Parts: sequence; structure tokens; C-alpha cells
Amino acid sequence: MMKLVVFRPPLLSFVRRAFISSSALKWEGGVSMVQGASRGIGLEFVRQLLEGNENGHVIATCRNPSGATGLHDLKKKFLDRLRILPLDITKENTIEAAATSVREHYGSLNLLINASGVLSIPDVLEPERTLSKLEKSSLLLAYEVNAVGPILVIKHMWPLLKLGGGSGTKRGFAIVASLSAKVGSIGDNRLGGWHSYRASKAALNQLTKTISVEFARKKDPIVCVLLHPGTVDTDLSRPFQRNVPENKLFTKEFSVQKLLNIVDNVKNSDNGKFFAWDGQEIPW
Amino acid sequence: MMKLVVFRPPLLSFVRRAFISSSALKWEGGVSMVQGASRGIGLEFVRQLLEGNENGHVIATCRNPSGATGLHDLKKKFLDRLRILPLDITKENTIEAAATSVREHYGSLNLLINASGVLSIPDVLEPERTLSKLEKSSLLLAYEVNAVGPILVIKHMWPLLKLGGGSGTKRGFAIVASLSAKVGSIGDNRLGGWHSYRASKAALNQLTKTISVEFARKKDPIVCVLLHPGTVDTDLSRPFQRNVPENKLFTKEFSVQKLLNIVDNVKNSDNGKFFAWDGQEIPW
Repeated sequence: MMKLVVFRPPLLSFVRRAFISSSALKWEGGVSMVQGASRGIGLEFVRQLLEGNENGHVIATCRNPSGATGLHDLKKKFLDRLRILPLDITKENTIEAAATSVREHYGSLNLLINASGVLSIPDVLEPERTLSKLEKSSLLLAYEVNAVGPILVIKHMWPLLKLGGGSGTKRGFAIVASLSAKVGSIGDNRLGGWHSYRASKAALNQLTKTISVEFARKKDPIVCVLLHPGTVDTDLSRPFQRNVPENKLFTKEFSVQKLLNIVDNVKNSDNGKFFAWDGQEIPW
Repeated sequence: MMKLVVFRPPLLSFVRRAFISSSALKWEGGVSMVQGASRGIGLEFVRQLLEGNENGHVIATCRNPSGATGLHDLKKKFLDRLRILPLDITKENTIEAAATSVREHYGSLNLLINASGVLSIPDVLEPERTLSKLEKSSLLLAYEVNAVGPILVIKHMWPLLKLGGGSGTKRGFAIVASLSAKVGSIGDNRLGGWHSYRASKAALNQLTKTISVEFARKKDPIVCVLLHPGTVDTDLSRPFQRNVPENKLFTKEFSVQKLLNIVDNVKNSDNGKFFAWDGQEIPW
């Protein structure tokens, strides 16, 4: 979501090896929104949602559509099925405007993927190695982008998801999938550090769990899940890939295939759960 | 921490019944700080820490010492052993100033209790009943007060706690106890609602777990715990006591006795854990 200095990927040779082919995407039809789609995992979600099925529409949102070259490349190929909208999760009025646009053009939503997230911004946000370096500004920024933003997107897309449910797809409900991270797990936290990021993802998990309870109680045809993509070779992880074991650094293609496989097989009883890329549930 | 309109307690008759006497406090000596001590649970911690042992010093912090009548009443009785300092957890410079003052007067700390917290502020912060009423400003305010503030206090008291360890007390380490809440548990979240408060407490839990890992790795003589006080008859809970079963609404005296009993019996292996008033561990 936030801009990062892009380093050359030093590990590309074995990054590619981590890519293995997976079963074809079965998600069909409907209207999907990918929030945070200009690059990285979000852009790959858009690509696979378009390429993996012959109908179905995708709305790709990002802060600055004019600079989203990856989306524009896809737009040339999928002219009628891809719509690019501006949305800055730190500005609620842009979320509302996107919801209005979706309502006018499609009437409803069947899938919402929250793919935006921030871990580091040079000279602004540095993942902390010690409590003594913890800054209030970093805690608040990570919270605003990683926890507050995605939940406000769900807030404004909620009526559209309720209208959409599973219509036009092979399932009985709409799905909200938000990218969380295993380091957001409190129970799994054995290394410490990365205070701002960890706290923001734990809060995102709590907020998602909270709204999943409301959706279930109101019998809304919506299932919410949290997804851990693994460590994926994107701008977000690049400054921190040094200590990642060779076979644990995934390509975007591989991770998104796995995550879409989870989304594709989500059951009603999965509402409010937190899954890793391999389908394992992650403790809170 | 934040000002609340104080209602007359409608349930005082059976509130009193929930009070049962407990074993006397065994905490002895040392220097304790109670942050958020002007009223409610924080003020009661100060009272019991002073009354429950014959030596030992207590530093009570609050935003506005001149208005803290409860603390001034205690000051008359415990002139030499109680020090009242201004500290506003939303202003980091006041936290630093308090740390400087403690260093000058005592040199070190043996116990830090983070007792501040906000759940509602009339016309400003309302515990949410539905996602559709979720406001960004509420999410950020609750996070700043309930998660960021207590962690910044620990950040600045850390050197003093490291110096203090268990010296002057009967134990081998200093203790940091922060008030969390069971509704901050993600795994235990079955009712939904109260998004801002729940998310802020889940984040506080994650931040506390994160720093407990660092303290352990560095072999600092500090043990961190999170405490759930139960539903206590204070200004914080008063607007929400209607649905609390009679025997589940505790007096401050009862809850703080129970919490100090936990603090008093904390072991090294409890570092980073989350306990309810009755000593039960709460899931994340």
C-alpha cells in the first residue's frame, strides 16, 4: 500500500523454484474486488481472478491508478472485465466513493480481498528490533493502514456483499478475505520484535473476528477469513528476506494460487478463521 | 484515564456482596508505580499497596494530580511513602519526565502497574454495537490510550525496572502488570461488538507478549503479565453494568485483592501470560 524503495531481488534464482503448479482456479463468475491491487500479492490476485475463469468481473483498487502499470497491462487484455478504481484506505471518503461506484456499475459484490498492508517505509516506518526504538508514530501508522483501513473497506462494502451473497457463483455466500500475517499471531510469537506490525495484525484479526460474529448473528450471506500468504517475494518482504530459508520464500504466483484455493473451498463454518497459505489454521 | 460522566451506581447493594475478604497482601518493600491511579482500579491498587505492607514506596501517576482527590486523601495518611506524579499516556514527554523523576528520587523500580484505560467517553467514544457505526477516530483513540500508551510507559520505565529487579522485595525480578480485558481475547470473542476496545486490548496483548520475549532473551530481571480484572464497579464499566450478573460485578477492593494476589505469586515462567482475576489463563 505504502511506497517502498524497490531493491533488486537477490534471491530470484531459488524464488522461482518455490513456484509449483497447482490446481486451476475454480472461482467462477460474480463480482470481485481486490483492494491494494497495484502490485505484489494484490496485483497477482487480480491477474489470477481474471485468467482463472472466463466470466466474472474484477474491481482493482489502489491509491494511485495512474501509476499502476501492472493493472494497466491487465486492462489491455481484460478490457471489459477489469475496472480500476482509486481507493486510499487512509481516506474513508475514497472508500465510500469506491462503494458508490461499485453499486452503480455492478449492484453488488461476491468477493472482497483486502490485500493492502505496510511493514516498512524508508525513513518513516522501520520494523522495530527492540522496545527502546518503539515510536508512537510507527504504532499509529501501522494500525491505521493494516487494521483500520481494511475494516473500513469491509464496513462500506458490507451492503454490497450482503446483496451479492453467492449469486452468480457456485456458492451460497459472499467472501471477505483479508491478508493478515503469522507474525500477527500472539500465541505463535516466539521471536519478538516488529512491534508495530505485529500489533496491527493482531488488531486486524480481532476486528475481523468481531465482524464475523455480527455477520453470522444477522445471517448475512457473508463469510470472513484471514489469510497468511507465507513470506512472498514482494516489495513488502524484500528488505527482510535475508533470513528466510530457501524453500520458504514464495513467488506471488504460488502464494496467490494457494490462497485462492483456500478462498475457493471456504465453508460457512470457516467464518472468522485465520488460515495459512497451506490451509492450516493459525492460533490467535 | 479519560473523563467519564459518573452515574450513580444502581447496583451498590449487591456490589457489596461480591466483596469477600482475601489473604493479606504479601508484597513487601521496593518501589512500585501505578500508572492511571486517580480513581477506579488504579487508585485501589495504590491504596492496597500502601496499606498492605509497612514499607515500600508507591508512585501514583495520573493526568491531572490536582484533581485526584482520592490520591490526596491517601497522601495525608502515607506522606512519606506515596509520591504523586503527572503522567498523560497520550503525551510521551510526560512519561519521560515521570521516568526522570523516579530515577532521581528512587533510582529504580520493582513493580509497574498500567491501570489506565478507556472504554467510552460521552459524545466522543461509544462502544460499537455494529460495524456500520465503526468510526476511524474511535479506533485510533482507543488504540492510542489502551495499547500505545501503556507500552510507551513500559519503554521508559524499562531501564528503571532492569536496575530494580527484585531488590528490596522477596522475589528475583521486577514485575510489569498491565490491565487488559477478557473482551480483548480473540479466541473468546463470541458476542462481537465493542470493536475499538477489543482491537486495542488485543494489540496491547500482542505488544506485551512481544516485549516479554525481548526481556527473556536479554535475561532482564523483569516479568510481564496481562491482567483481566473482571467486571468491576468503576466509572469505566458503569454505563455497561446492566447485563452483568449479580455475582459477576466486583468491587474494586475484591478485584484488586485478587490481582495483587496474582502479582504476588508470579513466577518467571509466567512472563508474557494473560491471567484473569481468578488466576485462570485467558486464551489469546
